[in-house]
Amino acid sequence: MSNELKIQPIGIIETPFQEPEGTPIQPSRANGARGRVHVHQGLWDGLRDLAGFERIWLIYWLHRVAGNAMLVTPFLDQQEHGVFATRAPARPTPIGISAVRLIRFEEGVLEVADVDMINGTPLLDIKPYVPEFDSYPASGAGWFDQANSQSRMADGRFGITVSSGS
Amino acid sequence: MSNELKIQPIGIIETPFQEPEGTPIQPSRANGARGRVHVHQGLWDGLRDLAGFERIWLIYWLHRVAGNAMLVTPFLDQQEHGVFATRAPARPTPIGISAVRLIRFEEGVLEVADVDMINGTPLLDIKPYVPEFDSYPASGAGWFDQANSQSRMADGRFGITVSSGS
Repeated sequence: MSNELKIQPIGIIETPFQEPEGTPIQPSRANGARGRVHVHQGLWDGLRDLAGFERIWLIYWLHRVAGNAMLVTPFLDQQEHGVFATRAPARPTPIGISAVRLIRFEEGVLEVADVDMINGTPLLDIKPYVPEFDSYPASGAGWFDQANSQSRMADGRFGITVSSGS
Repeated sequence: MSNELKIQPIGIIETPFQEPEGTPIQPSRANGARGRVHVHQGLWDGLRDLAGFERIWLIYWLHRVAGNAMLVTPFLDQQEHGVFATRAPARPTPIGISAVRLIRFEEGVLEVADVDMINGTPLLDIKPYVPEFDSYPASGAGWFDQANSQSRMADGRFGITVSSGS
């Protein structure tokens, strides 16, 4: 039985990061890096009232990831962990989520800050960030709570390096 | 040019909710409703060390949603908003994200609380909830900050009602 699901990107994310190596590992470690989210024109009406939100979730396809493994050594630790207990990009379903800051919105283009994805990343969905639904500041976070890595940038361990674009 | 992407579910989410109508609209309004996440056996190694996390993100396919619209009147307001400024399920890419509480983990089954999805929902990914990456308690939330609906349950407006299972 094939349960294969099909999706079409709704846009594309433009960022300063051309390769996995050197791309911030998370919005919180992106030093405010700016990006632009280009939404396909037929969907612009769906962006109405988004401008009131300080942050938005970008849901995207990790298009530059090579394969996946069940155990990974993430950027922030020296120990192996199950891939689902990490935010490592090399996952069975290569989907990423990032809460980025919404700076400005005009003509189907969202200017955002704190981007942590590679240039040309296919956009799957945008959702408003709503603290009541999304924010659990005191939630215990397993091995992350012990890890004290100050690492900000990815190295090449999960990525495909290609010579031009995506 | 077809940019179609293909994904395979990694498991299935079992919840008490058989129909869209009456399903909680978000984890924070689910009154602790319990569910079980069944991960396909070949992926169990990927769950190692997940037990240390208080919350996990479930990324899932909104399999019971009928179509989508660019403007929707969400459960929590009487006004129309662009679909990307809402968490309404009827989206161009029907992917949902929910931060649920992890209660127990055994043999490829995660017992979780605060579930807000329909029984039989295809699971796409599990990520650990990490406050540093995910929690922005003071983030301004546009129309949500004005809406004072206490509504907890979905009505049938976005769903497909079927007579048996999913």
